[in-house]
Amino acid sequence: MLRRLATADPGFAEDWRALTRLIEAEDAKVRQSVAAIIKTVRAEGDAGLLSLTNRLDRRSVKSMAELRVPPEALKAAFDAMPTKVREALEEAASRVRAYHQKQRDASGGLANWQYQDSLGNDLGQKVRPLERVGIYAPGGKAAYPSTIIMTAIPAKVAGVEELVLCSPMPGGEASQALLAAAHLAGIDQFFSLGGAQAIAALAYGTETVPRVDKIVGPGNLYVSVAKELVVGQVGIDMIAGPSEVVVIADATADPEWVVQDLFAQAEHDETAQAILMTPSRQLADKVAALVPRRLAEAERRDIIKQSLAARGAIIQTRDLDDAMDLANSMAPEHLQLAVADPEALLKQVRHAGAVFVGKETAEVVGDYTAGPSHVLPTAGRARFSSPLGVNDFVSRMSVVRCSRQGAVALNRTAAILAKTEGLAAHAQAAARRVQG
Amino acid sequence: MLRRLATADPGFAEDWRALTRLIEAEDAKVRQSVAAIIKTVRAEGDAGLLSLTNRLDRRSVKSMAELRVPPEALKAAFDAMPTKVREALEEAASRVRAYHQKQRDASGGLANWQYQDSLGNDLGQKVRPLERVGIYAPGGKAAYPSTIIMTAIPAKVAGVEELVLCSPMPGGEASQALLAAAHLAGIDQFFSLGGAQAIAALAYGTETVPRVDKIVGPGNLYVSVAKELVVGQVGIDMIAGPSEVVVIADATADPEWVVQDLFAQAEHDETAQAILMTPSRQLADKVAALVPRRLAEAERRDIIKQSLAARGAIIQTRDLDDAMDLANSMAPEHLQLAVADPEALLKQVRHAGAVFVGKETAEVVGDYTAGPSHVLPTAGRARFSSPLGVNDFVSRMSVVRCSRQGAVALNRTAAILAKTEGLAAHAQAAARRVQG
Repeated sequence: MLRRLATADPGFAEDWRALTRLIEAEDAKVRQSVAAIIKTVRAEGDAGLLSLTNRLDRRSVKSMAELRVPPEALKAAFDAMPTKVREALEEAASRVRAYHQKQRDASGGLANWQYQDSLGNDLGQKVRPLERVGIYAPGGKAAYPSTIIMTAIPAKVAGVEELVLCSPMPGGEASQALLAAAHLAGIDQFFSLGGAQAIAALAYGTETVPRVDKIVGPGNLYVSVAKELVVGQVGIDMIAGPSEVVVIADATADPEWVVQDLFAQAEHDETAQAILMTPSRQLADKVAALVPRRLAEAERRDIIKQSLAARGAIIQTRDLDDAMDLANSMAPEHLQLAVADPEALLKQVRHAGAVFVGKETAEVVGDYTAGPSHVLPTAGRARFSSPLGVNDFVSRMSVVRCSRQGAVALNRTAAILAKTEGLAAHAQAAARRVQG
Repeated sequence: MLRRLATADPGFAEDWRALTRLIEAEDAKVRQSVAAIIKTVRAEGDAGLLSLTNRLDRRSVKSMAELRVPPEALKAAFDAMPTKVREALEEAASRVRAYHQKQRDASGGLANWQYQDSLGNDLGQKVRPLERVGIYAPGGKAAYPSTIIMTAIPAKVAGVEELVLCSPMPGGEASQALLAAAHLAGIDQFFSLGGAQAIAALAYGTETVPRVDKIVGPGNLYVSVAKELVVGQVGIDMIAGPSEVVVIADATADPEWVVQDLFAQAEHDETAQAILMTPSRQLADKVAALVPRRLAEAERRDIIKQSLAARGAIIQTRDLDDAMDLANSMAPEHLQLAVADPEALLKQVRHAGAVFVGKETAEVVGDYTAGPSHVLPTAGRARFSSPLGVNDFVSRMSVVRCSRQGAVALNRTAAILAKTEGLAAHAQAAARRVQG
């Protein structure tokens, strides 16, 4: 059931391509219907939003007030959680906060700075937190409170003034844990809106839903396409594809742990991707043998079976370097290094969303408790993008301040370049400043 | 010809909306034809690219080799520049380099860091420069060598390994200054390809053009739509709209300088936007009176006239605070503070791409020589995005390394949260680690 590949195989390159091929959405139709939804919300405001929500979420609300989830409901949900769940949420929140404070302070994405050149000109940058951020969180059966923590807290640490959460409640049913997480994370406004219409509302604003500056958080295909279509009108975090893990393991890895780690990835949905890369034939054999047995015991075995069959693999590699090259070419969202000498391998990692170093470190701690946000680039996008972080919630401005002497020098040069580019008025504006 | 508005006017809100309304592209058709172009290049590789380039750029080349601009041609063009142009390029390059080194070192967008928690877990991030970046630069009549400097040098400072430049040569004509700038900036590969087909080639690669990780640089509508359509396949910098300047000036500003600064913006193209905001009726009157006189002398008067008429304005404000509020609501690409006390005003700036502080500081130095990149967010996007910088040419990875004791603690909590979310295999994977 779980396909097996080997890099030394003659057909490997092709298999690999097929395995990692981007899943392309059935675009035209979705795009069209998303565009129609956006148009409706934009033109009709709350009224359109209401009727869409009623229709698509099977609601029957009469006013926006019914879609607003008040802070008391959040607090109540939080207070009503079983103690250990509440404490777990708190611990996760506190760890994510600690991590992102570190990111802010050490990495300096938020730093203002300035220097003076030899002509007396000041150059620098000013950094400001975004004013209002929208968070989208799936609702219904796939409600993930952890996602609220993983998006809202980095935003708070960055200093964002207002957080607006949209999460659907299909049929009116709410995930209490999600409400609790919203309380804990300090969400300012929460609307039970979902799908493309929620994205449209956040992007353009309605009489009730405030327009935000940036939208973050995962969603289904309609949400993703809607985010694509509103880019520019607002900022977005990233287009999230199906979740992925690559486990690089050697003979020292525990096959039981490896199987569980693969299952944890595969259970997300039918398009999730779980791949083991190993130079050890013995480990590969053991994992292959364990999979059907552990699958029989797994609660979400249908989904796991489907995703492993469709997109999972055990890949035999020549050696660990070979595995690492392959993993780098894929730039996976999650990369586990379950080997005897993980530090040596870590040095070779070029692209990944998050790296889990050593056999003790399972991807699942990254989903909940380790500290870094679990919103990570998928589908090879770690080549050029980064985990959600403090940096995503600030914007920089360049600041230029000329001295008289400095203005003359800079404008003299600018006039020359402007002329070369045929921009006469630029040259003229610069030349005037030289004359004083 | 130049419309005048006043914030105190009863109809001001509506005028303002009309003035700053996003210019929406005639989408459907462009999108369709861009998609077709991308499809062709993706399916046919070089052959498709060649035929498209020949057709759309009026070329008649027979092989990709003819579209590759060799380094010798770049060096030759550089050497052949008039001395003062060459020196101007060098000075600009050196200033941009100095600025971006500062950004890298002080702002820390490139910093690796790590800390240990009380359980002995290590958390941190690793930052790597992108491997291969594609730069798009318009060619033909609108070739801007400064754009090569403003994109390539921040990428180099960030440590990008390879830079691939695409710039069209319509009818086979090349801008020598652009070639010279490419030499100076250390471009690794240069193809005379333009339009959507160049973007498609960079995004997907062909037999000849290497696939890149991110595409930066401005282009026309087809380029912009193509960039939108390849997002996710590659990173992109931003969707660039028409260029804009807001000049906030008081009675102490020199009207001649103000007029020249507005003209410099307006000459870009018919959709450029140049706005003066001032509480001084006297200055407004003087500028209004000067415009037709200076326009008669301007080389690019037709374009200036059209853009001022279509999108320019002098806006009378109640006071400077009023002007600043308005400017903040627009989040302009360029903001000039030509007032007696610019520092007080600077403190109030919430959103702008680049701020030019004080009467001595003209926007035109930002286009060429000041140091910060001139690739800036337009159309209100400074609310959520930033000038092109070192940060745009790196990606971060999260790194998690658990100790045995730490793994137990983190997994215990993770198991609880996973269960709450109904992710049984996550809970199982975590629980196994607790047992050891």
